[in-house]
Amino acid sequence: MLPRRPLAWPAWLLRGAPGAAGSWGRPVGPLARRGCCSAPGTPEVPLTRERYPVRRLPFSTVSKQDLAAFERIVPGGVVTDPEALQAPNVDWLRTLRGCSKVLLRPRTSEEVSHILRHCHERNLAVNPQGGNTGMVGGSVPVFDEIILSTARMNRVLSFHSVSGPVRPRCFRPWASDVGVPLLLSPGAEADVPSGWLACARWGLGLTSPGAHWKPSAAAAWSLSAGILVCQAGCVLEELSRYVEERDFIMPLDLGAKGSCHIGGNVATNAGGLRFLRYGSLHGTVLGLEVVLADGTVLDCLTSLRKDNTGYDLKQLFIGSEGTLGIITTVSILCPPKPRAVNVAFLGCPGFAEVLQTFSTCKGMLGEILSAFEFMDAVCMQLVGRHLHLASPVQESPFYVLIETSGSNAGHDAEKLGHFLEHALGSGLVTDGTMATDQRKVKMLWALRERITEALSRDGYVYKYDLSLPVERLYDIVTDLRARLGPHAKHVVGYGHLGDGNLHLNVTAEAFSPSLLAALEPHVYEWTAGQQGSVSAEHGVGFRKRDVLGYSKPPGALQLMQQLKALLDPKGILNPYKTLPSQA
Amino acid sequence: MLPRRPLAWPAWLLRGAPGAAGSWGRPVGPLARRGCCSAPGTPEVPLTRERYPVRRLPFSTVSKQDLAAFERIVPGGVVTDPEALQAPNVDWLRTLRGCSKVLLRPRTSEEVSHILRHCHERNLAVNPQGGNTGMVGGSVPVFDEIILSTARMNRVLSFHSVSGPVRPRCFRPWASDVGVPLLLSPGAEADVPSGWLACARWGLGLTSPGAHWKPSAAAAWSLSAGILVCQAGCVLEELSRYVEERDFIMPLDLGAKGSCHIGGNVATNAGGLRFLRYGSLHGTVLGLEVVLADGTVLDCLTSLRKDNTGYDLKQLFIGSEGTLGIITTVSILCPPKPRAVNVAFLGCPGFAEVLQTFSTCKGMLGEILSAFEFMDAVCMQLVGRHLHLASPVQESPFYVLIETSGSNAGHDAEKLGHFLEHALGSGLVTDGTMATDQRKVKMLWALRERITEALSRDGYVYKYDLSLPVERLYDIVTDLRARLGPHAKHVVGYGHLGDGNLHLNVTAEAFSPSLLAALEPHVYEWTAGQQGSVSAEHGVGFRKRDVLGYSKPPGALQLMQQLKALLDPKGILNPYKTLPSQA
Repeated sequence: MLPRRPLAWPAWLLRGAPGAAGSWGRPVGPLARRGCCSAPGTPEVPLTRERYPVRRLPFSTVSKQDLAAFERIVPGGVVTDPEALQAPNVDWLRTLRGCSKVLLRPRTSEEVSHILRHCHERNLAVNPQGGNTGMVGGSVPVFDEIILSTARMNRVLSFHSVSGPVRPRCFRPWASDVGVPLLLSPGAEADVPSGWLACARWGLGLTSPGAHWKPSAAAAWSLSAGILVCQAGCVLEELSRYVEERDFIMPLDLGAKGSCHIGGNVATNAGGLRFLRYGSLHGTVLGLEVVLADGTVLDCLTSLRKDNTGYDLKQLFIGSEGTLGIITTVSILCPPKPRAVNVAFLGCPGFAEVLQTFSTCKGMLGEILSAFEFMDAVCMQLVGRHLHLASPVQESPFYVLIETSGSNAGHDAEKLGHFLEHALGSGLVTDGTMATDQRKVKMLWALRERITEALSRDGYVYKYDLSLPVERLYDIVTDLRARLGPHAKHVVGYGHLGDGNLHLNVTAEAFSPSLLAALEPHVYEWTAGQQGSVSAEHGVGFRKRDVLGYSKPPGALQLMQQLKALLDPKGILNPYKTLPSQA
Repeated sequence: MLPRRPLAWPAWLLRGAPGAAGSWGRPVGPLARRGCCSAPGTPEVPLTRERYPVRRLPFSTVSKQDLAAFERIVPGGVVTDPEALQAPNVDWLRTLRGCSKVLLRPRTSEEVSHILRHCHERNLAVNPQGGNTGMVGGSVPVFDEIILSTARMNRVLSFHSVSGPVRPRCFRPWASDVGVPLLLSPGAEADVPSGWLACARWGLGLTSPGAHWKPSAAAAWSLSAGILVCQAGCVLEELSRYVEERDFIMPLDLGAKGSCHIGGNVATNAGGLRFLRYGSLHGTVLGLEVVLADGTVLDCLTSLRKDNTGYDLKQLFIGSEGTLGIITTVSILCPPKPRAVNVAFLGCPGFAEVLQTFSTCKGMLGEILSAFEFMDAVCMQLVGRHLHLASPVQESPFYVLIETSGSNAGHDAEKLGHFLEHALGSGLVTDGTMATDQRKVKMLWALRERITEALSRDGYVYKYDLSLPVERLYDIVTDLRARLGPHAKHVVGYGHLGDGNLHLNVTAEAFSPSLLAALEPHVYEWTAGQQGSVSAEHGVGFRKRDVLGYSKPPGALQLMQQLKALLDPKGILNPYKTLPSQA
């Protein structure tokens, strides 16, 4: 059935970009990669230990014997070159800097296990690092912790488009370093490299060199649910591409997709742009393989939709930021790729209208609504100034981005048409544009996704990531503008309105203790007054560990400490992170 | 917009019930209440300790002083009458029986806390009990454990139809025993009883006697997300009714809804009939209040969609079956009530066609598919024989029940029409009926929901609840029929096909060790061979604790034991359950 457009939509909704195609934004392509922007010539980031009051814990320091042991465990994967260590010591926001002298690049869970066993015995601290795109300093060392990078653990282990369980309990490294994903989807054929333990529901078996492996065609009938099993270091955007080629999507998406690793996403319980529709990783992650502090490999790598055999241990590690174990393999549920995606980018005259637009569109778009994002006028100005993306709609105090994803283009267009007609007719929305083709969809999304990048180019950024009642969501932005006056360069608010999640950002020419004092604890107290969360989706890391008490009672913090002591009694995993420092 | 029916559907799809209305099933109304069927005259259930090899652990026994202490903590809530204790000592399946001599009926978390503090000090074992509808004997004592019933903790504490956080950190008992739910939804008014700490996003405050409390009308605009906060003992069906009156639904539904408690649902990580659409309780439960073994009240009762402030502790308790703590309050996300619900009940000529129907309907119904259940011909016969429900469609080897839930009746009818046209045209489906009105929808659902009840009337039931690859889901049923021959009365398969969850049931005139030996470990080994789960949604309880190893590796079982030791060092909470006995 062809998409129908049953209503007479205003012409401007269907117009292309103003002026020449692309004039309101350069082609997006792969988004700017986070973690790669420490261009030479930029001013040196101060050492974390010098800016913040933090004391090194009595861990051992890496000796020559340790380096030799690491070289035996990960031949060719031990980095000690000071220049190569600069970038992984600094966070993406360029506000924290550790002084690690060793970075390890394992390729398998087994290697991670050997590394941790050694570190545990030697009392060496370890800082796991994925794409290093975090906002709270969770992924960079504070002192000289060994950086354990998942960058070379970047292989797709299997993808199934049936419900079948895949339990790659163990696997051997590839002979070559080139990680070509092994495609195990039904009906496909794949050359399985020597030494690989083929893991699929139709059987396990160590393949012989060059074996040609063909799965049973009997399962080719079903395309109902996709289950991806991959190593922790796979880049989210690459996984998205991989599953989209197979007619599925990843259940999460975020601005840092071009760099962030799926293991880091799970370790930080990343929320992002699809949370509204597909929910939390606590629901979509089916299984994990985790290496514990002493090197034990914990196998919770089921791929079953339902499994109530005992405590759901994997949940412990989702959002624990590498402090309880290092996630090495992820099994995750992938929703079917929607047949129709529409994005509307609309201007609203005030925040009350943003709220009303949300409420209206929840009611009228129902099950096809897949994102509801908002940004204020200052965000749009900064995106324009620093990234040269022009607004596709008239200047407005607020903008919302609404995405629908559905299985029937005609039905979706009709629902969206009714909604837009209502939103326009009632004055909730004053201007807007719509996109259905992928290029324009990407360009509209870029306006929202690249705000973080634009802010980082605006100066030093004080970042807050709050959960608040939606109807009070923007009050703190207005409040801070009045409170800070000219001391701040910009105060902006944007985020995932549909999830009650505000990204509140304040920029200044440089870090200033007095501006910090004006912001904190005020922002946290204000949030606690609304019974909100001082970290909605960014996590705790190094930056927020001493403000947990605004959102969690002492009893909960105590149990967290007990869990840490149980799973990592020597405290070697990502120290100085997640848990309050005083305890 | 009026629902349209754009296609010429076969007349039989739209026909009413054959013969007089209701002839293929008596009006359903509230489903048969589980836990209430131990009619006098039924044969006595053997004591668990006599049928199974289990040894009482060295807990104290309840003394007169203990009873006096309990009476002080829960005045009028201490049950010691042997007759009143008969039902709560026996599980719903009437195959397990404990010999508890005390049942406590607290009304508040504070009372639960005082009870556990006392029991912890005195080394008294405690068996938490909700609706006592479990299938694995998790909710009844094995020996003389004190039964802690949540039956009087049945109050709705708040319901919000906005994203706002509700943190009833503490509350006092009602003056009267009559638990009228306190309605806190925007725009409504409520008389708040004396001593109640009104908890709502618009402020906290201890109310004065008889205070008349009126929430701000400013929030009345939004009906986008429902958040229910209630005590653990609320009956699921009553909660469903409560939120449906406010245009929302509970994210879970199950056959035992008329008796089961929400606290028990969360403690067992219940799956049920809406799992396919709304996912796991690990995703929909927003917060919990839990009383730990020593009486500590752990407050994780946030109502935020997103909260990454430290480890997500509530996850530990979801599915831990009361062995790590007793859930006293639940905060849960309620999806909007769908505007249109359609149910199709179809006959399929074989299991291959059932699978193909599932695959086709996932593709064609997409985001509106809310349930895909199947049952075999024997199930239908038993439902007819024992419950006098007649099949609404021609006799078929298999039946599927497909439910759609959406926001636009016309669009949904069109999608369903296309799907049915295809399913019929291609021979996947040979007969069927459809329902849109609530009465007929309920009657169709009853055929599927009441299978458990029909089986329990067929004799002694050996129950298995397996997660399997969908394409192998029915093989074990066929296999067992051949294997058991006339030793079994009936071997049936039904369940949540969309989640890969088979309910495999074998009935016999009475319990027989030789039949058990023919079934176990065969069923578990077969399941493990498919990398399936030996407990998909029913949990472990007493019955399955020694088969966990078929689905979980030793390292995971060891960590479970460590968590148990951390949270309940004396092991007083629901002993003999969930964890393997040998460890």
